[in-house]
Amino acid sequence: MKELQERIQKDGIAVNEDILKVDSFINHQVDPELMEHIGEEFANHFKEQGITKIATIESSGIAPALMTARSMGLPLIILKKQPSKVLNDHLFQTEVSSFTKGTSYELTLSSKFISEKDHVLIIDDFLANGEAATGAIRLIRKAHATVAGIGILIEKSFQPGHEKLVSQGFDVYPLVRIGHMQAGQIEFLES
Amino acid sequence: MKELQERIQKDGIAVNEDILKVDSFINHQVDPELMEHIGEEFANHFKEQGITKIATIESSGIAPALMTARSMGLPLIILKKQPSKVLNDHLFQTEVSSFTKGTSYELTLSSKFISEKDHVLIIDDFLANGEAATGAIRLIRKAHATVAGIGILIEKSFQPGHEKLVSQGFDVYPLVRIGHMQAGQIEFLES
Repeated sequence: MKELQERIQKDGIAVNEDILKVDSFINHQVDPELMEHIGEEFANHFKEQGITKIATIESSGIAPALMTARSMGLPLIILKKQPSKVLNDHLFQTEVSSFTKGTSYELTLSSKFISEKDHVLIIDDFLANGEAATGAIRLIRKAHATVAGIGILIEKSFQPGHEKLVSQGFDVYPLVRIGHMQAGQIEFLES
Repeated sequence: MKELQERIQKDGIAVNEDILKVDSFINHQVDPELMEHIGEEFANHFKEQGITKIATIESSGIAPALMTARSMGLPLIILKKQPSKVLNDHLFQTEVSSFTKGTSYELTLSSKFISEKDHVLIIDDFLANGEAATGAIRLIRKAHATVAGIGILIEKSFQPGHEKLVSQGFDVYPLVRIGHMQAGQIEFLES
């Protein structure tokens, strides 16, 4: 997506080989017009997939996922992060560990909002090692629902997340792919 | 706002005198069309206030705040919750304690995204004791910016938050006011 790539070139900050700051338009300050265009782009790409619900992981995926849900006329489900396991019969839960950050959390989803008939489109801001996306997939499968696709704003293509998901047969659609970074420099791949 | 009040009557669950569950359309599953109408309502109410930025507190205010930002053509700032104080010169921070939950967190805002020229509209889902809103106000004032108004989806008018904010001279605009609750029953006040 040209608009997002140009915005990253203009306002994104490559801190080092791994860290890209996009907090002036995606993560901390959010540009609603850009989010609307992103939502339209995902809606257009996934329109033939029979999707019934959009899901995202709390909290930086909420803005683009809401705009995608709006464009597709579908409900959004926010997968919630809990610090530890909650005892509740009506809750699907799975542990997500971030190797890079050395942290873990329980991702949770109420069984009220998902059924085996659902075809779910997962939207998230970044795809790097794929830990969060893999957790979301596990959670959706616990509900016996189908993962119909994965829409990503920014893929760090030099990390293994994309390959992991595609090798499992998922339709992964990154709007922007980054092949290499170093401080002050970002190299994009063709989408 | 009639649409929101009717939706609460239909899908909200009063668990007891204090707890109202709206997780099927606001908090966990989100109805994008309702959020869009809410955004238009806030935009209309606050349109003459010279607002420059919308702010909300991570994470259940993000959806209505994004739609308000979209309707007003303004950036959204997400005030981030951190478990503990972060040492950073470019970050405004304030501690928010929830007496009811017995928890506290650091609310943070990067100085890059706010200046003394800003007139900020705060959007949040609930107003009860006003702890989160008061924290957001403190943070915005640390940046010497002006709080131009506070838009709330659901006010628990039997708790002191509204009175606390109004007595400090703030323009508080709740879309729905609840006067009393008990299990299975919600009494609304006129807005």
